[in-house]
Amino acid sequence: MRFVTGTIERPVTCRAIAEGGGRNLHIHGAVHSLRDMGGVVFLALRMPDGMVQCVCAPAVLPEGLCEECCVELSGQVRDEPRAPGGAEIAVERITVLSRPAAPMPVSLAKRELGLHLDTELALRPATLRHPRRRAVSRLQEGLVRAFRDYLTGEGFTEIHTPKIVHAGAEGGSNIFKLDYFGKKAYLAQSPQFYKQTMVGALERVFEVGPVFRAEKHATPRHLNEYTGLDLEMGYIRSFYDLIELETGYLRYAMELLARGYARELALLGVELPAVEQIPCLRFDDAKRLAAERYGYKIRDPYDLEPEEEVHIGQYAKEALGSDLVFVTHYPSKKRPFYTMDDPEDPKYTLSFDLLFRGMEVTTGGQRIHDYAAQVAKMEARGMDPAQFESYLMIHRYGMPPHGGLGIGMERLTMKLCGLDNVRYASLFPRDRCRLEP
Amino acid sequence: MRFVTGTIERPVTCRAIAEGGGRNLHIHGAVHSLRDMGGVVFLALRMPDGMVQCVCAPAVLPEGLCEECCVELSGQVRDEPRAPGGAEIAVERITVLSRPAAPMPVSLAKRELGLHLDTELALRPATLRHPRRRAVSRLQEGLVRAFRDYLTGEGFTEIHTPKIVHAGAEGGSNIFKLDYFGKKAYLAQSPQFYKQTMVGALERVFEVGPVFRAEKHATPRHLNEYTGLDLEMGYIRSFYDLIELETGYLRYAMELLARGYARELALLGVELPAVEQIPCLRFDDAKRLAAERYGYKIRDPYDLEPEEEVHIGQYAKEALGSDLVFVTHYPSKKRPFYTMDDPEDPKYTLSFDLLFRGMEVTTGGQRIHDYAAQVAKMEARGMDPAQFESYLMIHRYGMPPHGGLGIGMERLTMKLCGLDNVRYASLFPRDRCRLEP
Repeated sequence: MRFVTGTIERPVTCRAIAEGGGRNLHIHGAVHSLRDMGGVVFLALRMPDGMVQCVCAPAVLPEGLCEECCVELSGQVRDEPRAPGGAEIAVERITVLSRPAAPMPVSLAKRELGLHLDTELALRPATLRHPRRRAVSRLQEGLVRAFRDYLTGEGFTEIHTPKIVHAGAEGGSNIFKLDYFGKKAYLAQSPQFYKQTMVGALERVFEVGPVFRAEKHATPRHLNEYTGLDLEMGYIRSFYDLIELETGYLRYAMELLARGYARELALLGVELPAVEQIPCLRFDDAKRLAAERYGYKIRDPYDLEPEEEVHIGQYAKEALGSDLVFVTHYPSKKRPFYTMDDPEDPKYTLSFDLLFRGMEVTTGGQRIHDYAAQVAKMEARGMDPAQFESYLMIHRYGMPPHGGLGIGMERLTMKLCGLDNVRYASLFPRDRCRLEP
Repeated sequence: MRFVTGTIERPVTCRAIAEGGGRNLHIHGAVHSLRDMGGVVFLALRMPDGMVQCVCAPAVLPEGLCEECCVELSGQVRDEPRAPGGAEIAVERITVLSRPAAPMPVSLAKRELGLHLDTELALRPATLRHPRRRAVSRLQEGLVRAFRDYLTGEGFTEIHTPKIVHAGAEGGSNIFKLDYFGKKAYLAQSPQFYKQTMVGALERVFEVGPVFRAEKHATPRHLNEYTGLDLEMGYIRSFYDLIELETGYLRYAMELLARGYARELALLGVELPAVEQIPCLRFDDAKRLAAERYGYKIRDPYDLEPEEEVHIGQYAKEALGSDLVFVTHYPSKKRPFYTMDDPEDPKYTLSFDLLFRGMEVTTGGQRIHDYAAQVAKMEARGMDPAQFESYLMIHRYGMPPHGGLGIGMERLTMKLCGLDNVRYASLFPRDRCRLEP
């Protein structure tokens, strides 16, 4: 019999190699590219946090070594200003651990993959190995980690709520249906009901999880399954508390990225947005200011079209010097039934969106906490409160004033990284035509 | 126009109040219980991290104050050894922020809720406010946070992979079907294919997300939707690397709980398992040793029934002094097609389960990384490799030796907290009959 004690060898990182020459190291990775320069072979080794240049004499090169072989090698680190990270490895021994069965369908050594979107996505298992794709994945990880770490520090508890549900939170027809042991069920359009419920138990909660929207449009900004960064907070004094909280999160996130993801930021040429302060504009004002500045007529005073979001983003950048702008007080009829109307003008709500470089990346607001008020709003919309009995239990048994928000992880990543299609910000995107890989 | 700067007021915690008397504080929370003792009213205020005893003279009590009112109050902290945490608040002013529309259907002030499971779950939005239920939620949060923090420290990248999929990873009939814009689709039984795929790109990855199993059995240990703590690691030397890693995680988690969750552990009477070392037994040996010790006959040499898991857990506790035991080398025919067979005896696999107090909480193992070997195993099982083309892309283009594991978050929580039904370890459990709340 054997006992394990939790002994893990931490692998050597590129960052550690970049610390300089003179040491002998034993490392592993995939052969990202191979260049035979006559008397010497340059091998770029792909490691989790970057690439390492390895230099081999032909004599140490194993028979048939090719790209995407997985190898382990040992050698000496030496300073080399021309190598990425300023150091390279002079290989003394190299062993092949595994070999591919076929050559890559794309060249990972090219600076840009340059594929058509459909091709790129069909080959995602291969293309995700490209340095630029890996950098997007890493920055996304940073954004999500910052979300959790920041909120945990602010007293929030992470929750996990069901994705198979008996009713949709957002209403409308954009909901996936499924058969659940003979009963009709749906895929959650958001964790809305559940996160509100947990405010009654734990006051401040958040969830990171999949969100499903059966929307039929095929646009560069929509996915049918995305990851929601959701939070809900009790005892807010106004919805501006949520806006402050999101600003705090963004600042924390940008600092984390600046500190820990310099390689990825540099590779993608990402400019982090300034988040010392973020302007807030009322919905009406934002529409008017952008229309005036860019000389167009407002078509629908109650709606904000994607083109208008672009203009408002442009206004925020040019007139206010900000990549980010909160738009507040959306019209009541465009917001879900659980949104609190503004007591000063009930045509509008105590709600907001966050636009980042001209695209909505967050929706949030204060919720109705009073039972009678929530039932009345449902009835005014022709909804049947009896169908929401388990949700209304929280209002019946008492809820603090509260509100929350949801951030689209992929959109946030997309705008941060300057991607022109949200599909690039999802590892394996789901759209109307795409279910594989 | 308004600018926000991310200024958040951090609410006062119970922990801070317990630090002692003399200060004036302004706090908020829900009235958990009210006891009128004649000249003085004791009010237990429910805050995110516990309860605070507040003492009010009748004169400061607002009209009609009742349980589940949400209030803010100010007063002086004073030491009081009989109060939870050793301190109480002498209330000077109290304001009602919201009121319930109806009294609670259960008494949250009772030490145990004592409800039938069905009643408890139907009233979940109310019962989750009970201190013991909140403690389970908090400990669960700790287990998940430890998983992420530990793996991040070990160089893993968090990923998010689709839950709507074109094929099941685990095979069999226990898969939910759905209509995806006229195409047949499924809910993911695990992130298996995707996490393996990402090993090709990032070497070490993990995911925390929902897993869907359309199993029809109604047992105290099954849910139809649960949260998987999944990881996958490249460049393993054997599957024992995974066992070491999980042991490292468990040690990290138990330390985190001991350090940061003392109130919750004490409330539930949780005894943390010792995790300095964990025994490993081969499948055959584990079966035989337990059967010998407890005097029963092995019915099926290739299967491990739940009752046998209980016996092996008992054996580990009594003979080896451990709440945890890894069972290794499961029979090949009981493991999925991607599992690597043991070259020394291909009837068995390089795989393992972790039993915690007699119940499987983890399944893991080494995967096949060679293209020809994977295709051969599929064909030997009568599967059509063409149906797994996008998955096999990773083997075709090269994969390191790798493996991974999946932990059932709810089962881990259940066994840690000594719950007798896994449903208590899920906020809103999904079983064959339960789709709401």
